[in-house]
Amino acid sequence: MATAATDSYEGKPLTQLFPYEDRPGWKGYIEWEDRLDRKEVVRELLKRREFPHPPEFQFAPLPTTNPVLGGERFKAYHEAIGLNQIVDVSWETVLKEKPNMTHLLQFPYNGETKFEDLMKEKLTDNSLHFVRNHGGVPYIDEDALEISIGGLVKQPVKITMKDLKDSTKFPQAEVTITLQCSGTRRREQIEQYPGDGDELINAPWGEGAIGTAVYKGVPLKQVLKIAAGGVLPECQHIELIGADTYFKKGEVYNYAVSVPYRTVLMNERVLLAWEMNGKPLPKIHGFPLRAVVAGYIGARSTKWLYKINALAEPSMGPVQRQEYLYYTPQLGKQNVTYSNGFSIQDMPVSSAILSPTDKSVIIHDGHIELQGWAYSGGGNWVERVEVSPDGGHVWYQVDPDDMTEKHYYAWRLWKTKLPVDAEGWLEFCVRTWDSSCNTEPTFVRSAWNWDLHVTSSAHRIKVYSVNKMKPATARRLKELAEHGQGMEPLSRPLAFPLENADEYRANYEKHPREPKN
Amino acid sequence: MATAATDSYEGKPLTQLFPYEDRPGWKGYIEWEDRLDRKEVVRELLKRREFPHPPEFQFAPLPTTNPVLGGERFKAYHEAIGLNQIVDVSWETVLKEKPNMTHLLQFPYNGETKFEDLMKEKLTDNSLHFVRNHGGVPYIDEDALEISIGGLVKQPVKITMKDLKDSTKFPQAEVTITLQCSGTRRREQIEQYPGDGDELINAPWGEGAIGTAVYKGVPLKQVLKIAAGGVLPECQHIELIGADTYFKKGEVYNYAVSVPYRTVLMNERVLLAWEMNGKPLPKIHGFPLRAVVAGYIGARSTKWLYKINALAEPSMGPVQRQEYLYYTPQLGKQNVTYSNGFSIQDMPVSSAILSPTDKSVIIHDGHIELQGWAYSGGGNWVERVEVSPDGGHVWYQVDPDDMTEKHYYAWRLWKTKLPVDAEGWLEFCVRTWDSSCNTEPTFVRSAWNWDLHVTSSAHRIKVYSVNKMKPATARRLKELAEHGQGMEPLSRPLAFPLENADEYRANYEKHPREPKN
Repeated sequence: MATAATDSYEGKPLTQLFPYEDRPGWKGYIEWEDRLDRKEVVRELLKRREFPHPPEFQFAPLPTTNPVLGGERFKAYHEAIGLNQIVDVSWETVLKEKPNMTHLLQFPYNGETKFEDLMKEKLTDNSLHFVRNHGGVPYIDEDALEISIGGLVKQPVKITMKDLKDSTKFPQAEVTITLQCSGTRRREQIEQYPGDGDELINAPWGEGAIGTAVYKGVPLKQVLKIAAGGVLPECQHIELIGADTYFKKGEVYNYAVSVPYRTVLMNERVLLAWEMNGKPLPKIHGFPLRAVVAGYIGARSTKWLYKINALAEPSMGPVQRQEYLYYTPQLGKQNVTYSNGFSIQDMPVSSAILSPTDKSVIIHDGHIELQGWAYSGGGNWVERVEVSPDGGHVWYQVDPDDMTEKHYYAWRLWKTKLPVDAEGWLEFCVRTWDSSCNTEPTFVRSAWNWDLHVTSSAHRIKVYSVNKMKPATARRLKELAEHGQGMEPLSRPLAFPLENADEYRANYEKHPREPKN
Repeated sequence: MATAATDSYEGKPLTQLFPYEDRPGWKGYIEWEDRLDRKEVVRELLKRREFPHPPEFQFAPLPTTNPVLGGERFKAYHEAIGLNQIVDVSWETVLKEKPNMTHLLQFPYNGETKFEDLMKEKLTDNSLHFVRNHGGVPYIDEDALEISIGGLVKQPVKITMKDLKDSTKFPQAEVTITLQCSGTRRREQIEQYPGDGDELINAPWGEGAIGTAVYKGVPLKQVLKIAAGGVLPECQHIELIGADTYFKKGEVYNYAVSVPYRTVLMNERVLLAWEMNGKPLPKIHGFPLRAVVAGYIGARSTKWLYKINALAEPSMGPVQRQEYLYYTPQLGKQNVTYSNGFSIQDMPVSSAILSPTDKSVIIHDGHIELQGWAYSGGGNWVERVEVSPDGGHVWYQVDPDDMTEKHYYAWRLWKTKLPVDAEGWLEFCVRTWDSSCNTEPTFVRSAWNWDLHVTSSAHRIKVYSVNKMKPATARRLKELAEHGQGMEPLSRPLAFPLENADEYRANYEKHPREPKN
């Protein structure tokens, strides 16, 4: 969409104003936060164009394509300022590093782990771990990366990756951490109550926007202390800035969020990490360096980290100030502001049933196997998982032997055999209790919020139960097999009579329709 | 689809075996019930072909076309025995008599009244009244029609339309009657729990498969008495046979159902009618003669009526014996038979909100106007309508001044102004109490049944409430107007900042995110 007319600004080529490799070895990175002059030019350029509206997918059926959504509006922002290459490289990286995902949004890339992959093991393979990016994928040479530390620290400083990884200079840690997009299970909210579309599409996540890995790096607390001499007394928050480019309401930014300094003080909670499951970070996950904030919403775990600021207040970056806010249900398009929602940081307890999937037909012998995940943030661990075969009336505890081990900052995968006698449509649900005795709200309505975050209500699926231990059902299954048919598709009519005329007559005579008198 | 290979059977052309005008002046009628030889040939012909499965629309989004569904399988049955003309004439009749409907199924024709038309007045205009046909539309000359009366009557007889309409021979009656398809509001069941697809598609009806008219005709009781000398003591049911052609599981039939004789004994309950709202019946509604059974499921009101049989048992026709059955929720494809459901005859109390429609955004001043219908069958009339702004917790009675008058056999239209303070997504619902103090089940789940009939649960809609009496909302509406935008589409992001930086800072200082200590 970027035509000849927008190749330049006041005679200067855009590629010169906003170089794709703004520093040697830093491809796909453009400095915005220190360059108000550039921000001003972008503001002007974006004003001159009309951009397509985000596609309507909340009040309409979701496309069945993969990628599900294209992100045309966000692509057009990049194209309007000559950064088409960022768009192209992002998708090339997906095809290389993440070929087997459910691609919810092509650009910026948002991809969800397929459910069968999610259940494979406690640690999610790097190639399968979900990704929620807010911009393109910078390609930064590890040797070229310098991390700047500034703001309310005793000694502003720059450190190289070589120094950071030198275990004689900085103590290292490995922590098992579940990262979760606060949009996980957003589809459930959308189905009942559409909400904010956002210009950077609020992706229609299912149950797969969560994953677990062992991250290796240096605690941020130690970096601040050893490299910068510690923070000044006024410091309350640590801002983390990434090299990716982000747009919001006609302005351009580098990605910026913050974490309270109180959280940083716990060594294991905020790592500057370069390894994921024993391997270098994939590019799409932030290579060469990212923050990983344990127990928090994923959005604070800044990728392609290159700048750290000690602040008295939270970051004023739009991702921190204007997004990932949690609203009461009476707030929406008609009255929502930034300050009437609160910032989502620690994640609440939540869980999901991954198998069976919603609206499945299950032929069983009186037990149905369920599998899923359970997680709580903030350092609370998962204590107990309960499942219900009747929409939340009766609950069965999952045997702890059928759950993966406890971690302070990671999920537990679980499976269980649920006793099921009844046939027809049943509603199964799951709820989890964490180490603080917190559990989940019962219905999606209890959790609904305008920005469609944190779908932490008891996860519900509808299952069509066919209990082959019941004689009438066993007989019908046999008839179906004789006719070369199956139970699915459930709504396809049976091609043979349901009952012969003699049986019908005998039944009618035993139980006539009308009373005798 | 009928190719040269199937134009004939054992050397005889199909058009000769199954003539389109089986009796002079009876077009689109073929006698099946008295012609077992013909039924046998059809059975053979249908066995020789493969027919397309009904389309899957329950587990998939409903097409947004009009007609919504084509009915290809049922068309193919007709084509396979040389009756393409029946298919063509049916649609021509729709275009002539029913051009402004929501056409849910092209063939056999199933069309629903648009909601704004349904609310216009107590009596539904003939051109707008819903239609649920089971086959094509016969074109029968009034002068050529003879109605045969047989079975357990004292004197089998044939009567002409001329005699029937002669008020010196038969007493006439006019009754205001609501007819309702038992599939009304089926969409609500499908959305949560798909069910039987049926080979004659179970149309995805909304709230418009209901309508009211004044029918004029002769009470069936009087016809039996005066023309046939009355029924024999063994008679318990009266079978009503229509001239349309119907298929079920490889067999062909004329449309046949029955009504208990006890019901026929009430003069006003079962009419043989030729007038609808003071005009001759439209062809698509059964011209020249139909039965109208007040208080019953619409399916008993046989169109193109030409044969009446007094029986000891209900009709063995598939529409009576194998369809319109009401099942307990644990019955379905895995175990359903004809005799484990009961026959739907009298209709229960039910109601619907027609305005606003589901998922509307409503800007209001503290009150939202609702409109709808309320009905009960079996001679029970509507006593009270109640609406709830909160999913069924608090109920408000509709003022009787805002309801149309009472009838024994007809609905009441109603409207009300519901006090609404709250903003955001609300769930409104309606329930009705009839003269027997019956009311509706609370949730769709309570009413779900495999054949997806009788969705009599409290009708629920989700509405996004925008209360312009709230200062923050009034301010946002002004901002939207200044930007040339509106509240809809609701999910389209606001293009301007939600709050300026100064306000944000002032709010943050007043209510910081983290505690001080």
